[in-house]
Parts: sequence; C-alpha cells; structure tokens
Amino acid sequence: MIKVGIIGGTGYTGVELLRILVRHPEVTLKVITSRQESGQGVDVLFPSLRGLIDLQFSDPAQADLEQCDVVFFATPNGVAMHQAAALLAANVRIIDLSADFRIKDVALWEEWYGMKHAAHELVAEAVYGLPEVNREKVRHARLIANPGCYPTAVQLGFLPLIEAGVVDTDYLIADTKSGVSGAGRKAEVPILFAESADNFKSYGVPGHRHLPEIRQGLSERASKAVRLTFVPHLTPMIRGIHATLYARLTKEIDLQALYVDRYQDEPFVDVLPAGSHPETRSVRGSNICRLAVHRPQQGEMAVILSVTDNLVKGAAGQAVQNMNIMYGLTETTGIDFVPLLP
Amino acid sequence: MIKVGIIGGTGYTGVELLRILVRHPEVTLKVITSRQESGQGVDVLFPSLRGLIDLQFSDPAQADLEQCDVVFFATPNGVAMHQAAALLAANVRIIDLSADFRIKDVALWEEWYGMKHAAHELVAEAVYGLPEVNREKVRHARLIANPGCYPTAVQLGFLPLIEAGVVDTDYLIADTKSGVSGAGRKAEVPILFAESADNFKSYGVPGHRHLPEIRQGLSERASKAVRLTFVPHLTPMIRGIHATLYARLTKEIDLQALYVDRYQDEPFVDVLPAGSHPETRSVRGSNICRLAVHRPQQGEMAVILSVTDNLVKGAAGQAVQNMNIMYGLTETTGIDFVPLLP
Amino acid sequence: MIKVGIIGGTGYTGVELLRILVRHPEVTLKVITSRQESGQGVDVLFPSLRGLIDLQFSDPAQADLEQCDVVFFATPNGVAMHQAAALLAANVRIIDLSADFRIKDVALWEEWYGMKHAAHELVAEAVYGLPEVNREKVRHARLIANPGCYPTAVQLGFLPLIEAGVVDTDYLIADTKSGVSGAGRKAEVPILFAESADNFKSYGVPGHRHLPEIRQGLSERASKAVRLTFVPHLTPMIRGIHATLYARLTKEIDLQALYVDRYQDEPFVDVLPAGSHPETRSVRGSNICRLAVHRPQQGEMAVILSVTDNLVKGAAGQAVQNMNIMYGLTETTGIDFVPLLP
Amino acid sequence: MIKVGIIGGTGYTGVELLRILVRHPEVTLKVITSRQESGQGVDVLFPSLRGLIDLQFSDPAQADLEQCDVVFFATPNGVAMHQAAALLAANVRIIDLSADFRIKDVALWEEWYGMKHAAHELVAEAVYGLPEVNREKVRHARLIANPGCYPTAVQLGFLPLIEAGVVDTDYLIADTKSGVSGAGRKAEVPILFAESADNFKSYGVPGHRHLPEIRQGLSERASKAVRLTFVPHLTPMIRGIHATLYARLTKEIDLQALYVDRYQDEPFVDVLPAGSHPETRSVRGSNICRLAVHRPQQGEMAVILSVTDNLVKGAAGQAVQNMNIMYGLTETTGIDFVPLLP
Repeated sequence: MIKVGIIGGTGYTGVELLRILVRHPEVTLKVITSRQESGQGVDVLFPSLRGLIDLQFSDPAQADLEQCDVVFFATPNGVAMHQAAALLAANVRIIDLSADFRIKDVALWEEWYGMKHAAHELVAEAVYGLPEVNREKVRHARLIANPGCYPTAVQLGFLPLIEAGVVDTDYLIADTKSGVSGAGRKAEVPILFAESADNFKSYGVPGHRHLPEIRQGLSERASKAVRLTFVPHLTPMIRGIHATLYARLTKEIDLQALYVDRYQDEPFVDVLPAGSHPETRSVRGSNICRLAVHRPQQGEMAVILSVTDNLVKGAAGQAVQNMNIMYGLTETTGIDFVPLLP
Repeated sequence: MIKVGIIGGTGYTGVELLRILVRHPEVTLKVITSRQESGQGVDVLFPSLRGLIDLQFSDPAQADLEQCDVVFFATPNGVAMHQAAALLAANVRIIDLSADFRIKDVALWEEWYGMKHAAHELVAEAVYGLPEVNREKVRHARLIANPGCYPTAVQLGFLPLIEAGVVDTDYLIADTKSGVSGAGRKAEVPILFAESADNFKSYGVPGHRHLPEIRQGLSERASKAVRLTFVPHLTPMIRGIHATLYARLTKEIDLQALYVDRYQDEPFVDVLPAGSHPETRSVRGSNICRLAVHRPQQGEMAVILSVTDNLVKGAAGQAVQNMNIMYGLTETTGIDFVPLLP
Repeated sequence: MIKVGIIGGTGYTGVELLRILVRHPEVTLKVITSRQESGQGVDVLFPSLRGLIDLQFSDPAQADLEQCDVVFFATPNGVAMHQAAALLAANVRIIDLSADFRIKDVALWEEWYGMKHAAHELVAEAVYGLPEVNREKVRHARLIANPGCYPTAVQLGFLPLIEAGVVDTDYLIADTKSGVSGAGRKAEVPILFAESADNFKSYGVPGHRHLPEIRQGLSERASKAVRLTFVPHLTPMIRGIHATLYARLTKEIDLQALYVDRYQDEPFVDVLPAGSHPETRSVRGSNICRLAVHRPQQGEMAVILSVTDNLVKGAAGQAVQNMNIMYGLTETTGIDFVPLLP
Repeated sequence: MIKVGIIGGTGYTGVELLRILVRHPEVTLKVITSRQESGQGVDVLFPSLRGLIDLQFSDPAQADLEQCDVVFFATPNGVAMHQAAALLAANVRIIDLSADFRIKDVALWEEWYGMKHAAHELVAEAVYGLPEVNREKVRHARLIANPGCYPTAVQLGFLPLIEAGVVDTDYLIADTKSGVSGAGRKAEVPILFAESADNFKSYGVPGHRHLPEIRQGLSERASKAVRLTFVPHLTPMIRGIHATLYARLTKEIDLQALYVDRYQDEPFVDVLPAGSHPETRSVRGSNICRLAVHRPQQGEMAVILSVTDNLVKGAAGQAVQNMNIMYGLTETTGIDFVPLLP
C-alpha cells in the first residue's frame, strides 16, 4: 500500500483527492493537513465522506509527512515551493497540484505569479504531469507539476494538430468556459451563488496565468513558439470545462482520423464520432477528456471541442493518474469513474 | 453472474440503472429495451457510457427477456403489470421501479392511477422493496415493488417515531422537495430549464400518487391508519430529495438515540449528529439516506430531515440493493458510491 | 421631490433600493453611504445602473444625511439603532430594513440578536411596516421597522386564518424556502455557487431570528400567544421565497372566500384561483405576494402557499411602499413592476 | 394609441412582448392569437401578468387583425411569410420576430431554412430592423425583419471594426453562448432542466441559421463578403447572450475610442471602460447591449465582448424599439428597463 499525505485538504481539489483516495485500492491515507481546520474530523467538514474516513486535519507545522511515500500539494500557489526540497530529501515523492513547478522559465513564472520562486533548482527537475505527453518521464519522476485545469483541456485538444504540423501556430485561439468550482472554495463575493448563477461572463481577458503554461506546452510540441489568444469564461455550473479551439489549417488532413490515431491507446481521452458536440456532463465526476473535431462548411478553420471535469482530469484525477504511473499501477486504478448523468 | 435485463432504458431511472450495472461485479447486462430507440447504440443516446457498454436498445416486442435471471422495469406506470406474469412463469424475477405493484389495495391503486389493474393476483405476492423494513421478505421474493422516491425518503424519516409509538399519527406532515429529474426524461414544458430554473413551486397539493403509498407503509408499521398531509415541491436542482417531516410528540423520548438505534445496522441509512442539517449534495450519486432529528425550542414538535438521491436510493440504487439481497450478495455490492461533492 | 439617503448601499437590499429609486418619479437620491466603497462610483460596483445614477458612495462618517427627508438603512443589524435618534432629531424620517426595531420586547430582541439594544426608547415608537396590517400607523410614522423577508411571506399567508379565528393557533407550521440572495452579499463559503447550486438544505432549525418576529405579528392579530414551528431552507435560486403553511382548521369556513375578501383592496397581494400552485418566478422582480389556499382531501388541515420576491416585497419594495404611504403618494408609485418571466 | 396585435403569443418572445406592451404608454393591445390556447385567458397561462391584461388568446383563423395598426409575429419560421401580404394590403404594418424576411437572398434562405419561401416579393421590401444600422429605413418601413438574437449581439460587436476597415474580414470568429430560453418554449428533451442544468455544450457547429444572417449584415457594412466562423453554445442560465468575438487587426487603431465614438448616440448600446468584462446579468431584462474591447498583450488580435438579453434586445425589446421608431416615438418609450440584478 502506498502511504499518502495531502497538504491543504479543505479546498475543492483536496476534497476531490479524498473522494478518490478513500477508495483507491493501493492507497492508505496517512495524513491530511489544514491550518484552519486542524483537529477537526475530515467528515465533519465534508459529510459526504462519513463512514469512509476517520482522519482529522493536522496542523501543517506538526504533521508527520515523512512517513508518506508520496504527498499531494492541494495548496494555493507559493506553498509547495517552500516545502518540496525537504520532503524530497526525506525520500517523499511530490505531486503538486498548484502552479509552483509548471513553468520552466522561472522569470516568466515570477512575472505571472507575482512572487519570487523559492526553489529554482527543482523547477528543472519537475516533470509536467500530462500523461498523454510525458508518460515516460512521469514514470521516473520524484516531483510532478500537475497541469492546470484549462491547460489540460486546451492542450489535449490542440496536440494532434500541433504535432502533425497542419495548422498556423501564429493564430491559435482557445475560448474556454469553466464551472465555478474552478475558482476554488474561497469566500469571495464574485463566486457567490447570487452573483454567478443565471449569469455568464469572461474574466482575465488581458492575461490569465494559464496562458504561459499552455504556450509552453504547445510550443514544446511545435518545436517553436506558438501564439495563442486565450479567453476564459465563468459559466453557472459546478464542475466542467468546455474548450472551444480554433486553428487555421495549412494542409489538407483527415481531422477525425488524426485525432482517433493520436489517442487510440489513451485510457482517458475519448474522440467522439465526427459531427459530435460533447457535453461537460458526459464527463462529470470522471477522469475522461472527450474531444470532437469539426471543420465548418469545409473551410480552412478547424474547430476542436474539448470537455473535462475540472476537478478530476483537470486536477485530482490526473494527479492520481500520475501517481498510478509513478508506482507502476494500472493507470486507471481507482479513477475509472462512470460519469454521473444526469 | 446474474443475467440482467432492463425494460424501458431511456428514462432517468434507466440510465441510472445502466450507470450502476455496467460496473456491478456480479452482473452481466443481456438486454435493454426501448421502443423509440430500438436499434440505437446505448452509448449513442448516453455518451457518458462510451466504452462501458456495447449493447443496443432492443424492440420490446422482440427482446429475449427469458434469458435473464432478473428483469428491471424502468417503464411508465401500467406496463409492468401486463408483462409480469409471463416473465415469472419463465422463472425470471422482477424488480419493478414503476408503481404497478406498490399498493396492496387494488381499488385504491386504480383510483389514484386512473387505470384498471391488469394483474390483481400478483399484487398480493409482490414484496414492497424497502429493505429497512422488508429485508427478509425481499430475500425470498420473485417480484419486487420498488418504492417511489418520496416514499423512501419520507418513510425512512418517520419510521422510528411510528414504530416507537411516540407521535400523534393523526397529524403527520411531510413537506418534500425534489430535484427536477424526479419528473422524468419527458418532453414537457413545465420541466424545461427556462421554466424550472431560478424558480420554486409546489405541485399536486390536492393529492399526489405517493400519498397512498406512504400512508400504506406507515400505517402498517403503526398498526393503524395514519393521517398524513403530503406536499411535494419542485426545486431547481437535478438530483436530490429533501423531506422535512413534522410530528407531534406524545411521549418524552431521546430522539437522537431512537434514530441511532433504529438504523445502526443499516448500511445505507446515516443518522447525523444532533443539530445537523443534511444537504442533498451530501448524498449526490450515492445510495445513502441521511437523517437528522430536531426538536425546536424543546417543544412538542419533532422535525425530521431526510435526504436522498431520488435516482439512487429513491429508484435505481434501491432496486439494485433489492437485487443484491435477493441473490444473497453483500448488500452494498456495486452501489457503495462515494457522493460527488461539490 | 422627496430627498432620499441610503445607508449601507452595497448589499442586495441596497442595490435593489437603487434599482427602484433611480426611477421613482417622486424621489431624488441625495446620498448613499458605504465605508468600504467610499469614493467609488455606484455604477462601477453595479454596472447594471450605468447611465441611471451618477452618485458616489460616501463615507458614512462624513455623509450629510440631514439634508434628506427620509433615510433607508440597508445595514447589518445593530447599526440603525445607534444612528436613529440623531436623525429623527434632525427631522429625518427613517425606514430601517434591518431588524433593529422589529421586536417590541427588547429583552427578547437582545436574546435572539445577541447584543444590547442601544435605543430602547425608540422601539416603542417604531411602526412595524407591514402595510396590510399597519397602513394607518405607517402613514404617520417617523420610524419604520421594515419587516423581514420570511415574516412578510408567512404573515400574509397566515393572517386571514388568524384574524378569522378559525385555526388552532397552538399548532402552526411554516416550512419556508428562500433563494440564496436572502443570505446577503457576504463573502461566506456556504453561499458560494459551488456550495449551494444543485443542492437543497434546511438551516436554523433549532431557532431562526425571524421566528420571534413572526410570532409577535401573529400573536397580535390572534390576541393571544401563538405557537409556531418555523423551518427555513435554502434553495438554489437567486430570488424568491416560497412559504408552505400548515394550520389545523377548527371551524368550517370557505377558505377561498376568506382570502379573497381579506385582500381584495390590497394592491400587492394576489389571491390565486382555488387549486393554484404559485411559482416564485411569477413575482420575480415585483412587489407582489401571491397566495393560494388548499385543503387536501377536504381534511382539517389548511395548506397555504405564499410566494414573494425576497428583495422586493421582502425588503426594498416594501420599504418604498412604506415610504409612499408616509408621503401620501399612490401606494404603487415606482414599485408597480411587471414580474420578469421567464 | 397604437393598436397592436400579437400573432403566436405563447412562446418566450410572445410573453416578453406582453411584459413590455402591457405597460407601453402609447399602445393598446387589441388581439393576441394562439391556436393551442384559443379561448384561454392570457393571465391563466402567464400568472405573472395577472391584473395587467384581460385578453384571451384568439384562434388565429378568426382573429380580427385588420383592426390593428401593427402586428408582431412571434411565430415559428414559415408562418409570417404566408400572412404578411394580406395584412400589408389592409394597411397593417408588420414586425416579424421570426426569420422569414431576414435574408435578402431567397435561395440562401430556402437552403438554410429547408422550405420554399412564400413571399419573395416582400423580402426585398422588408427592412432589417437593427436600428443601430438601419434607423432611417425603419422609420419608413411597412415590414420589419427583426434580427435574430445572436445576430444582434454579434453584429453590434463587430460593426465598428468592420465599418472602420481595420480588421481582416477573412478571419472573423464569433464564439457565442446563449441562455436556454433562446431555444424557445418547446417541449423538447435536450432543453429540459435535468438535461441542460449544470452542463455546457456547443451545438450547430457545422452550421447554424444565424450564420448567413450575420454574414449578410457584416458583408453589407464591409462592402465585401466576410468570412466568419460561428460557434453557438448553450449555457445553463435562463436569459442572456455573451458573444466573444475575435478579429485580426490590420491597422493600428484606438479600439476604445472607436467603439465609444461609434455608439455615443445610441440609447441602447453601452461601451464599458477599457479592461471591462461585461456580465449577462448586467443587462437582464433590459434592452441594452454592453460591449467591452480588449487587445490581449497588445497583440494583433482584437477581442470584443458583447452581452444582451436574448429576449429583449435580442427579440421583443428590439421589436418594440423598431415600433417606436416607425411611429415617431421617443426610441426608449416603454423599453427603458433597469436590469434586474441580482
């Protein structure tokens, strides 16, 4: 059994890790920390877990994390970078769900995240945990930078086009829509029910932190710097991301075949039949990314539709997928959820 | 492996049975019928099931149901009563999720359901499938009348009080609230999104079909006819039932202890700590009923709060729970879902 | 023109007062205060008001409120009681939307609100602003205690029964459901979208502050102390209250006629035809309370259904209705909104 | 007073016309037709209008429409084209909210709408009722083709760029999101609450009927054929459209100044300050279109955000705006609603 710790377990990625890990057949949950809820029973804060867990939240300053084989950081940005080195030194592996190790260019990271990076030396070592790209590297990693929710949906959608070199990478557009849980379990007015229900809006149009992460990932696959316009929106649903991607085709190609081939061995990427319109609810609660490809009026614009559950494939599910790979388990272990529909 | 058929698989109880049964370790799905979708792949209608099922909907007139060990009816009222006798004669057991066999008084059934009953002789044999009351009878049943969604939540809430004889059974009130999936997957204007979102209303106040079912169940336990005012409401959520129950106490009693004792061995009934307010989301996607008991201002009124997922404990989950009992399986097999929160 | 001030204009009752008053033909808005938003343009915080208002929020400590004829307090409880005396002394009338002056029994108020009352002497003078009961007193009032949202819907529903003396007042039940805006525009986790969407729950079952307010109002009309069980719930919609009221009839009476007669001259109470089920959306954005009366199965239980918009008839609209009465205007002036449906 | 008729008054554009016209100070509603609801009181179907209207729905075959000065068609496509000529001959003006007269190229219309056009000769005469473009023509029109909901939001968003000739018109993208009321008040499974709540999806990606309408409008202003990729989505809210528009700049231009100048005299178009993110709720229930312009990272891509209420500026409100212009009234008469927020 893999001994697991969770640091910062009271947010949505934390409770989603708990939902997954309490039933994972190869995992024993040893410790979960929260400064604010220290001493509180986990199932008191989250009654959905009653009968499934008997841990209490530990004070992060006192938690014995070194007993763990692997620790998940479900913390705000800027926490993992301070604690990673000590844990690695104690032979604890790390899967960081925050952004601390996602951007290889530390100066760029510091610009977008507005703080000094505290562990430059680990940034290079960290493996970007998108299994559909980096599965082999994940297998041998000590430190995983788990991708952001938008970057997962957007990259999985664009990758086949980019890798095949069939689109103009100077004019990529990602128009993305997220459920409100993507904003976290934070007491803030704009994500109150009475503010965000029956409402639709964009945000971060001048620049969103997931932009450099997506650009980095796509540029690596393109072997050159891509240009991307990225516009996120908030939609009144709890979970789910829908990415609508636009790219100008520069070569004739059978788009459907390209995508089917690219993902045929991927356990968590599902290419829908030609002409489909994936719904976010078709992946609700699951680790699946569903894709559909279109070429309206046979013009030169490819339109790719990509849906995920932002808390699963966009966060906790993908983190456990990475853990499964790191420990040589069947990749789907404990995360092969059937979507909840309706 | 238990060979299973589903009759009428395109409604919400049908797709929920599918969600459960495709992963049930002791079940092989053999056939699923639908007149309208006959020939269509199940995963075309429900993309959430892609990769999990390769059945097509069969024409009900041609489906080979006699190959099955057990058949679930997920049909409108008035269908199962016509087909039950033939299936039983062919040694196929039946779990009917419709109302056809729920009411023992046939005349009463005919009055509330507005049609002639076609299988009087089977009504007596049918076992009302509320395991928390009839577990032993379910074990040996050929024909299960699976309870309605409201009746499950309301009866589980009232039972301890009724059985202990501590309330005035002439003045029971059940004020219940359901998610919109309870109205079924039917093309009707009042359950359109733009009609029922951001809106709350009661319906069926003069009389709802679940009233006689609840009265029957409670009267049996009370050993006398109870009087009940039952008011259902529609609330803008997909899944979930919240029953708020009022009963006047006629004896001093430790309510919390009464409930804890009554349900301590029940795998799917969870009595919350005193003072709790259960949320429907705390059971979303699960077969659990959570209860909380209150006695405001230490007065004579007991207030019981009961939440379920109407499609699971209120329909398909309880149906599979009954199947598990009938076949001697561990009762939680295949239905021990962790609630999806948020 | 009536010169109006609003104290505490950044919550939902504040912005709803603004929506109403910017178009009220007899009002000039002179000042609106907010400590936090002081100096900010009102239409920057609320872009829905762009082009309709050019005020800025003023610092409450510096605002010239004495220029106003009437001031609305849209503040948290415990603010108005400190400022009322000085304003009245300056000949400014007050309409307080908070709870400070609603309860005549100061000790009871202090018990439920958990603070010392700072203006005992004004409590007696304050007129409880439910026009359907106190219209004449409102006409001559200097200080209005505007009713709470639940108390408005519940009292309007129960009043005809209580006044006619036809129900057992020892056995009243109010099962109420509110949209999330009723919890205010406060940064708190339980009212986040991802916490309260697709979810239903009760709260405050052991005791809610609106209970003593309702009891006081009903007891006055009954000329004796009534007993009431009051259970509030949170439902995933923005606006709206639905009260489902239960009372045991002690006399034969034509319920429909009773209600029609009681409210026939009321501009904002609409008694629906017998058999109706009012929807909250049928009053969305309007100052109307719609009622329907039922007597299921001709039994002895009366079931009254009452819907309002919690921010209009339950708060800001009723406040302006009171202002209209105080100033001798046609009572519907500026608040005769057509409900927004769908 | 203008004598007005509504043909097909039971859909969402019909009830929205009613909401507006019952309070319009220059209008008398004379007749409203519905085959299905013939004889029924309008306020029975729509209780939100109780006390505001005492008309009954008339049988369309028997309704006396010739008494009207102007008739609104709120019918499905393909109805108005059969009745328009006779009404015009009787000196009744027509404002058609359906698509029958929107496309000047009849063959193109027939291709997209899948039927033969029955009134070719009137297509040329019909004025496309987008006041911000065609105000003068509207003033003298007998027959108005009221724009579609998406075309209104998209054209108002693109117009300044197109008219100024500063973008590459071969490469326009409109990623649009609509509330569910845009799909109409039709009993269809995909727009049920339990299908479309907590869900996000695209539809019509291969081709949507509003595409040729938008292309026609933009091409006229560009004086050449534009190329547009148009992707509509369904978002779980009742009302509202959010259009996110992408265009490649070909000239340096002060975008903010361009938009402010273009719309400074328009009563219903509001250009937000630079950097803004308009929310659909900021126009809920109003006839306003709010726009914001962005140029992320000072690149060559302009991103325009445009929000409207699909039932008001996208349908009934714009129809009344056109009527106001036709009759020489102040353009805002009866449609100067303050948005309902929250």
